[in-house]
Order: sequence, then structure tokens, then C-alpha cells
Amino acid sequence: MTQRTSTSEWPCPIAKAVDELGDGWTLLIMRDAFRGARRFDDFHRSLGIGRNILTERLRVLVDRGLLSKRPYSDHPPRYEYRLTDKGREVWPVLASMAAWSDQWLNGPEGPPVVYRHQACGHDMHAEVVCSECREPVDVRAMRARRGPGFPSGLDDPWLP
Amino acid sequence: MTQRTSTSEWPCPIAKAVDELGDGWTLLIMRDAFRGARRFDDFHRSLGIGRNILTERLRVLVDRGLLSKRPYSDHPPRYEYRLTDKGREVWPVLASMAAWSDQWLNGPEGPPVVYRHQACGHDMHAEVVCSECREPVDVRAMRARRGPGFPSGLDDPWLP
Repeated sequence: MTQRTSTSEWPCPIAKAVDELGDGWTLLIMRDAFRGARRFDDFHRSLGIGRNILTERLRVLVDRGLLSKRPYSDHPPRYEYRLTDKGREVWPVLASMAAWSDQWLNGPEGPPVVYRHQACGHDMHAEVVCSECREPVDVRAMRARRGPGFPSGLDDPWLP
Repeated sequence: MTQRTSTSEWPCPIAKAVDELGDGWTLLIMRDAFRGARRFDDFHRSLGIGRNILTERLRVLVDRGLLSKRPYSDHPPRYEYRLTDKGREVWPVLASMAAWSDQWLNGPEGPPVVYRHQACGHDMHAEVVCSECREPVDVRAMRARRGPGFPSGLDDPWLP
């Protein structure tokens, strides 16, 4: 996937996000950052991927501003990775994936993980709602149109 | 990414979802299905990917039950791909990606696409909220613990 076409310039918010997040290891590195991983070896132990792949993915996440890298040791030089605001706001995406997963992918024994929202004190799952009416979003009730950032002169058969 | 480690058996809802959705082309194929694409050539024209890659990704999406495949022509044999319930419920994940994208990836000209929620009649973005208190989820207020589907005897340093 590192070699695939960049979709960052496509005039579509989903395609832009896919360019930054649409990679399995990247999503799992972010998951681990949300779980508390900070050091290279935390991610390496958890994911069991090659060090070169992990190094590359972490570098891209730092370059794009989802993680920040800062030294925690000078001798030897060692770094830890912290979520930035941009990175922290990926959590709702992963939380919605977790909710879909619990709906569709669990075995009969039930969910492997239970999430509690400490702010309200309840076990919960994520729901994705409309910012205006607060009802769950259903794609059949959505309509998309070109916005101010859509390039003029470009055709898109699906966008009025 | 087709060759990567399967994470479908990891005891984590995010890892399970990543196994089904954590691939750039897969997410973009789903995006196009939500936009109205049904036929192979719809997807092919929109995405500009190789026919072999598209064929493989569509096959996996059908195998996993996110799309259904049915004939629309016998001579020559031609098929269309429709969202299943499982596939349609991926929309909240993509909608939350679009909201993150609009927050962090737009240029000064603004969003390329505007979404309207026909059910309430307003332009909107997706928000990810707690199923119990309806407040937006913030990872700093979340706690995860082992659920009934977590394999006994398995260690996870991040899960009590």
C-alpha cells in the first residue's frame, strides 16, 4: 500500500482521509497509541511487524502530524511517540470501526473488549450521528454535493 | 496489504475491523458503492485501478458479505454489486473519516464535498458519540477491559 496511488488530492474527504489512514498497519499503530503505546518497542511487541515497516509507518505518521516524536533518552538516543491533536481525533474513526466490528464480526462468545465511557460511567459503543439533528447517520438519507473546495471544471458523475 | 498478516483473530474489535476494512482500495470501493456505483465499470472508471486489483477486492468484499453480487445480463454474463446490511453499516465509519478529513486536511478553499442529511434537511458532518450519554467520544475518557470473547490465558498489557 505504500506504493499505491496517492489519493490525497482527490476532491473527496473520504479519499483524502484514506490517503492518511487507509492502511492496516497505520490504523493498528494508531490503535496502540490510543491504548498507551509510546515507544518503538511498545508498538513492535504489540504488533509483531518488521522493524523496517514500523519505522516507515511511524515516520509517515510523524511527517503528517498525527504523532509527535521526542527524545526520552540521549545515550543511547531514544524517542517516544505521542498523539497530537490531529492524531487524537482519529479515535472517533477507530471507535466507529470497533462498533461495526462488534455488530458484525464477533463470535457467539461476545465482544473481546468492552469499552467504558468514564465521563458518564457506562459501558458503551460508539454511534455516528448527524451534527445537526443528532440522529444516527444512514447513507440512504445522505446527499453529497460539490463544496467550495471542489475544483472547477472537474466532472464527477455522482456529485451535483 | 493483501499479503499482510490477518488480524481477524486478534481479540480486539479494531484489529478485526482493520482486517476487513483496513485497505485503501477497499475503503474507496465502499465509498463508491455508497455514491451509487454498482457495476464493475462504474468502480473501474471512478478509481482508475487495474482490473485485476478491482476484481480481487470485489471478490473479497462479496466473500465477506459487504457486497452482494448478482447478474444483470446473461448474454454476456454481467454482474452488479449491491451493499448488504453489513456493508451499508460501514457508512458511519466513512462518514467519521470524512468529518476528520474536513477538520484536518482541507485547504483554505474549504471542503470539496458538502453533505446534507435529508432526514433533517441540514448540511452536516458526522459526530461520533457515546451510545449512553450521547456526548462526543474522547479517547482520554475511555477505558477498555477484557470482554466475554477475550481468550482466557492470553496476556494483554493494556487490558485489565
